[in-house]
Amino acid sequence: MSDLSEAMFTTPEMASVFSSAALVRRMLAFEAALARAQAAARLIPPAAAEAIAAACDADEPDLPALFREAAEAGTPAVPLVRRLTARTAAAGRGFVHWGATSQDVVDTALVLQMRDGLGLLERGLRDVAAACAGLASRYRGSLMPGRTLLQHAVPITFGLKAARWLAAATRLRRRLRDVRAHVLAVQFGGAAGTLAALGPDGPRVTELLARELDLAAPEVPWHTERDRIGEVAGALGVVAATMGKIASDLVLLSQTEVAEVSTGAQAGAGRSSTMPQKRNPVEAVAASACARLALGVVPVLLAAGVQEHERGAGGWQAEWEALPALFRYAAGAVDWVRRAVETLAVDEGRMAANMTAAHGLMMAEALVMALAPRTGRDEAYRLVADVCAQAARAGADLREAAAADERVAAALSGAALERVLDPARYLGSADAFIDRALAAFAEEPA
Amino acid sequence: MSDLSEAMFTTPEMASVFSSAALVRRMLAFEAALARAQAAARLIPPAAAEAIAAACDADEPDLPALFREAAEAGTPAVPLVRRLTARTAAAGRGFVHWGATSQDVVDTALVLQMRDGLGLLERGLRDVAAACAGLASRYRGSLMPGRTLLQHAVPITFGLKAARWLAAATRLRRRLRDVRAHVLAVQFGGAAGTLAALGPDGPRVTELLARELDLAAPEVPWHTERDRIGEVAGALGVVAATMGKIASDLVLLSQTEVAEVSTGAQAGAGRSSTMPQKRNPVEAVAASACARLALGVVPVLLAAGVQEHERGAGGWQAEWEALPALFRYAAGAVDWVRRAVETLAVDEGRMAANMTAAHGLMMAEALVMALAPRTGRDEAYRLVADVCAQAARAGADLREAAAADERVAAALSGAALERVLDPARYLGSADAFIDRALAAFAEEPA
Amino acid sequence: MSDLSEAMFTTPEMASVFSSAALVRRMLAFEAALARAQAAARLIPPAAAEAIAAACDADEPDLPALFREAAEAGTPAVPLVRRLTARTAAAGRGFVHWGATSQDVVDTALVLQMRDGLGLLERGLRDVAAACAGLASRYRGSLMPGRTLLQHAVPITFGLKAARWLAAATRLRRRLRDVRAHVLAVQFGGAAGTLAALGPDGPRVTELLARELDLAAPEVPWHTERDRIGEVAGALGVVAATMGKIASDLVLLSQTEVAEVSTGAQAGAGRSSTMPQKRNPVEAVAASACARLALGVVPVLLAAGVQEHERGAGGWQAEWEALPALFRYAAGAVDWVRRAVETLAVDEGRMAANMTAAHGLMMAEALVMALAPRTGRDEAYRLVADVCAQAARAGADLREAAAADERVAAALSGAALERVLDPARYLGSADAFIDRALAAFAEEPA
Amino acid sequence: MSDLSEAMFTTPEMASVFSSAALVRRMLAFEAALARAQAAARLIPPAAAEAIAAACDADEPDLPALFREAAEAGTPAVPLVRRLTARTAAAGRGFVHWGATSQDVVDTALVLQMRDGLGLLERGLRDVAAACAGLASRYRGSLMPGRTLLQHAVPITFGLKAARWLAAATRLRRRLRDVRAHVLAVQFGGAAGTLAALGPDGPRVTELLARELDLAAPEVPWHTERDRIGEVAGALGVVAATMGKIASDLVLLSQTEVAEVSTGAQAGAGRSSTMPQKRNPVEAVAASACARLALGVVPVLLAAGVQEHERGAGGWQAEWEALPALFRYAAGAVDWVRRAVETLAVDEGRMAANMTAAHGLMMAEALVMALAPRTGRDEAYRLVADVCAQAARAGADLREAAAADERVAAALSGAALERVLDPARYLGSADAFIDRALAAFAEEPA
Repeated sequence: MSDLSEAMFTTPEMASVFSSAALVRRMLAFEAALARAQAAARLIPPAAAEAIAAACDADEPDLPALFREAAEAGTPAVPLVRRLTARTAAAGRGFVHWGATSQDVVDTALVLQMRDGLGLLERGLRDVAAACAGLASRYRGSLMPGRTLLQHAVPITFGLKAARWLAAATRLRRRLRDVRAHVLAVQFGGAAGTLAALGPDGPRVTELLARELDLAAPEVPWHTERDRIGEVAGALGVVAATMGKIASDLVLLSQTEVAEVSTGAQAGAGRSSTMPQKRNPVEAVAASACARLALGVVPVLLAAGVQEHERGAGGWQAEWEALPALFRYAAGAVDWVRRAVETLAVDEGRMAANMTAAHGLMMAEALVMALAPRTGRDEAYRLVADVCAQAARAGADLREAAAADERVAAALSGAALERVLDPARYLGSADAFIDRALAAFAEEPA
Repeated sequence: MSDLSEAMFTTPEMASVFSSAALVRRMLAFEAALARAQAAARLIPPAAAEAIAAACDADEPDLPALFREAAEAGTPAVPLVRRLTARTAAAGRGFVHWGATSQDVVDTALVLQMRDGLGLLERGLRDVAAACAGLASRYRGSLMPGRTLLQHAVPITFGLKAARWLAAATRLRRRLRDVRAHVLAVQFGGAAGTLAALGPDGPRVTELLARELDLAAPEVPWHTERDRIGEVAGALGVVAATMGKIASDLVLLSQTEVAEVSTGAQAGAGRSSTMPQKRNPVEAVAASACARLALGVVPVLLAAGVQEHERGAGGWQAEWEALPALFRYAAGAVDWVRRAVETLAVDEGRMAANMTAAHGLMMAEALVMALAPRTGRDEAYRLVADVCAQAARAGADLREAAAADERVAAALSGAALERVLDPARYLGSADAFIDRALAAFAEEPA
Repeated sequence: MSDLSEAMFTTPEMASVFSSAALVRRMLAFEAALARAQAAARLIPPAAAEAIAAACDADEPDLPALFREAAEAGTPAVPLVRRLTARTAAAGRGFVHWGATSQDVVDTALVLQMRDGLGLLERGLRDVAAACAGLASRYRGSLMPGRTLLQHAVPITFGLKAARWLAAATRLRRRLRDVRAHVLAVQFGGAAGTLAALGPDGPRVTELLARELDLAAPEVPWHTERDRIGEVAGALGVVAATMGKIASDLVLLSQTEVAEVSTGAQAGAGRSSTMPQKRNPVEAVAASACARLALGVVPVLLAAGVQEHERGAGGWQAEWEALPALFRYAAGAVDWVRRAVETLAVDEGRMAANMTAAHGLMMAEALVMALAPRTGRDEAYRLVADVCAQAARAGADLREAAAADERVAAALSGAALERVLDPARYLGSADAFIDRALAAFAEEPA
Repeated sequence: MSDLSEAMFTTPEMASVFSSAALVRRMLAFEAALARAQAAARLIPPAAAEAIAAACDADEPDLPALFREAAEAGTPAVPLVRRLTARTAAAGRGFVHWGATSQDVVDTALVLQMRDGLGLLERGLRDVAAACAGLASRYRGSLMPGRTLLQHAVPITFGLKAARWLAAATRLRRRLRDVRAHVLAVQFGGAAGTLAALGPDGPRVTELLARELDLAAPEVPWHTERDRIGEVAGALGVVAATMGKIASDLVLLSQTEVAEVSTGAQAGAGRSSTMPQKRNPVEAVAASACARLALGVVPVLLAAGVQEHERGAGGWQAEWEALPALFRYAAGAVDWVRRAVETLAVDEGRMAANMTAAHGLMMAEALVMALAPRTGRDEAYRLVADVCAQAARAGADLREAAAADERVAAALSGAALERVLDPARYLGSADAFIDRALAAFAEEPA
């Protein structure tokens, strides 16, 4: 699939991990591992395991036909096991898929794909975090307006903004490691979760099988208790939303009137078909689109967790499409954000200019806090609101209006007023927060 | 893409309508139509229109490269217009994409895809309806338990059940025709919706363009007012949910303990990999999976309707992936239901047997209604509840328990009781409802 | 419920229409109408109908107890019918709820609530449309930047922006009228959809009942075919998303750096608890929150459409909570947008100033189109891109850079260049589109 | 709010935790704790802290008015701080809400509500788990059909089914404890996340504030990085889906044709308004409805995580409604499942009878596995499929058909065949899995 979907809404690596061909390879890996585990448990002859494993090494020759038959059978396991059996040497032919059910092989294959997919997302988030850490350090002192409800609030620095993105990315990395620990469990239950065909050997074979595949052995099979899948879905949804947040910030900062950052320094990106002056924030826009698509898949997977009795009739099957889609879109969101933050051009001059845009009113809170110890916070608030209104009426600066106000003058000397209204002195714990985000990043594996 | 996704979760026809290659062909169709419309409006020379149309006839040679560049540019229009311009003969080269914006061509191409997609869905629903009409006629008198909250309630017929599916399918067909009328409008607004580059000729060219493409001309451009897309999303969501309902009924009727229908008469369908006795209701299960996937896309498209200013930054781009996905999944849901109802095996004997399963208690309401004119509904209800409890305690039939009850005997003769407890006499308007559903179907175009 | 939810996320009117108490009143209205219809059909004595109707006139005395019993019974119909029966005079007591099932009364009550709810939404949208029509007329000529992907594109007018909102609101009003026509149908099917207890009189009583309640009589009962509910859900979702779009535009236009509009002229609205200078766009923000909440309910209702056999086991019950929630949130979204557009302060001076913000580069497309007839669009695009780059390097205006460019000078005289770069001359069909949106509004009922 | 919503779709305890009144109480608790923390940090006088804390002890007198003003202000913090300030004694009046922003108090109040809400959910899940553990022990040996795609597969026991529910509930309990550890962090950042008003004392006051409230102190403020909220949303979604799964199983097992369990032993529950024989599985149906409603809120909260700059404009506000809704619905789902499993009536006789329903074909896999060591799995599968078909044609039992088949007879003696077809001998690891689920339960806190 080399189409618009693959080009815009995922990465080639994730598309490859979750291709249908990769699913089939993972299913064969399960069958080989199962045979080895059963040979180790002396349930089947060693020669059988060797024969099966050898047959599993081969790529499936005609995937389109396989998938057509999968649709007829309602599961890809049925035609694959048939083909695998047919091409397994006589010694193993009778022992293919021994004691397993379709869902064992499909679920475990999906788990193996998820392992790779989580790895890709973790690496992507690491790169996002590293780029944000660079921005947090480099722009630690770069003043810019803090904006709440998209209105100027009080000053912040661009370093702090990047540090907040960084802190979130670090939390996401930790969260994905938890997910890994909870979720990467083999599925093995047989036809209805009893492993009946293995007699009393179910748990032992499960352990061996898990070891073969380097997965956890679950306490019980989980054919229709999909909390593991749900946990993946929730976590990737949070990844997507967080990427959406960073992308949204970048789109807003890129606006013509704001122009504090621009993305996609590379030649040609974001051009318009008719307007030669335009540079669209395409990376951030694409990240936002991917995040929306990923978020749309989450409720499908959560709702699919309501599965009937010992095998779901609809919910389980929907996962085959939805899980790959979720990983693909989440990877797209992470990667477009990565591209944006790695190539971000930051215009500190513009940030400084925007600070002064609204008559310096952004420093009103600072003035309130400076007056409050003397007047009480409430009275100070009213007083400064008054001064702001005067400034607005006069088209003047807060600084000028404050200096002209007798009540302010009574409380603060001219020099004190200057200090109070200096945004660089009204940053509170910004530096401390940047340090903490960088420290948390430094503790993560590289 | 000949993978599991295409084999199980859509139809080949719909996959083809919404392929990326088809999108590009539709985009070229827009550019050709635009040139012709502008020549007709004397904005560009006829020879230019001919040259452009000729260049639009060719298939794009290297789609993967085109899509890669689309991702960089943030829209497929930019690289496509560049390529198209390059290969247009000199007479037309200067007039390619004249006055249009990327969104004009992409949106109109999606509208053209949707037109074909709606056609496929309508034909699918027609086939579903036809099969249900057949079932409604054939099984008009086949008694079966009506089930509410999955408990036996009162008798119905399988014909009535199929007629209800039919009535819903007929309403959906009408609804899709409405959607067609509301939604299939050309997009043409230029860079920011003013058609500035066309001077005063915008509305006239829009009319001519719409005529070229056999689409409606909207009253104003709709770049960021996506109610049309939202209406499609809602309607396809309802289609999916209704298919899900039919599929759910079929899965429930196929249960081993119920066994009133079986789907997939074709050889081999629904086999298990380990249990030779099994015949899984794979068509219905696949329909349910497709319906879930389709429903997951609807909120993505609705939320994408919140688009910024004159062009969306994220929502619009998400539509390129979500709209095709919605049509693909909806087509899968309709087609799997079609396969299921077209090949449905109905076991009237089993239906009759299930009628008597729970001691004939399903006729309790009939007995209440027969006694009510004499005792009042309330008293009758208590009396029959009493009789039901007696039957349950004695392991007897409602018939026996009722006959043994003095209060019942006082009100109804033995023959009258027989009549009252005959399920075939307690079908009320079932026949009338079947007739109405068939009549509504007959009014629809074939 | 006079809590934060009611204060912020709905309107008092909609909260009242969808209160549980209102549901009970509508259920009683159904029972009264049913009795009257059955008396008219001579199924029950006229005196019975009078007695029942009289008992339905009274308000339920102890709603909390009623709802507790409803939860135990799994439906509010069971305890309500019991209470109603108990208080109906002897003449009618035996005929309460005759032949109906719980779902008949609950569904029809919901339909009656939806009728009122749709009326409120239509009036709200009318007011939104009227305010937008006012803005479209008043600011027809007020130039402002058109913004695509939040970048300046080409000039528009604020009148055009308001006209686009107006056109969408007008389409929504039409859509809700369609919904009304499709959806407001009585539910009447009896225990399993056959109206068995009415013998052959089902359709006739249905007609009479529908007439009593001024609802449509459906062709067949629709207990578990919820396409009507799904259509409401989809349509309200589109209403919510469109309100979200207007709200998003308002938030963006209110940004400190843009400042082209401000909402909430009323004293005190949108103040911050600590920053005296702030005026938050609270109406638009609240509208956006309501829109998000409404959109969240849509998939619940669509998915609830997958209902089992003759009565849903979970999906139907979820509707009792979800349908009221959807109407409440949608009403909140419409009303907050109404408040915002009705009190909108528009700063034309700021719009004009923002036009020139980015070195006049917004007129680049106009220059391309002016040069294109001479050079071809492609060459003109390259040339103007060049001029834009020169302007950017020199910190100059597009106007200056273009005047200084020999190639431009060769094609356009100084006066011609002035005309080309005058944004007021590059508005294309903006006026025509405003006229069309106003005309469509004028055709609507007042 | 004592309405249908509260009676059916939540618990009184959770409704109380997430009432608007409780939100206000939590907001006051924040303000009191902040004052104490700032006094401890010597930022404000001890007397000020005492005065503020005293004023926070009082209940707000006019909540409806407060919420109306909250809607005007766009946040409940503005009117609450105003009122609190007004009623604080002079010593403290000037120091109320010192250095905090609206979002600090609202978010922390929500976190405090979530702490209580998580506690309720954990207790609910503990009770569900305890009831399932009881069922797993009591019915450890009760044979029933395992059902995949709702078809009989191979035997299981009801104890195993309950043990799988138990294992899932145990995993959910652990997950909620993780969520607690990740999520219950104070919010404290001041106007734009710098704690500017506190000078360098931000981190220290944050620590003290967190200690006062027994919450974690986050590394940095998290006003617009909502991964914590998203993690709650995801986890509660998984809780809801798992409750939906148990409820779905119960509804299916309660079907008239299956009748292996019945819920709601209490008198009167689940009665129909017209059918005296009915006992609807109302607890499971209500649980399913609550689960659907909860799942609908999850994507609202995840999407709300895309928040702008330093304070969200729409997403944050939507959380105020959505988070309480999610907890309320999740509590409803857990509690209805609890009621169902605590009062579950299990019909072992019916389970045994259903085992034999389909001609004993459920033992087909056992026969395959018994023959496979001799014939190979593939050949055994074909052979047994053949025998099953013979049984079906003859209306005979698998046992009879197998005994009559020469190939089977050649492989298995009559006694061996008996053993092979004895379902009690074909349970594999069912007991071991039950033991593991019970052991994991026993390790949890009581």
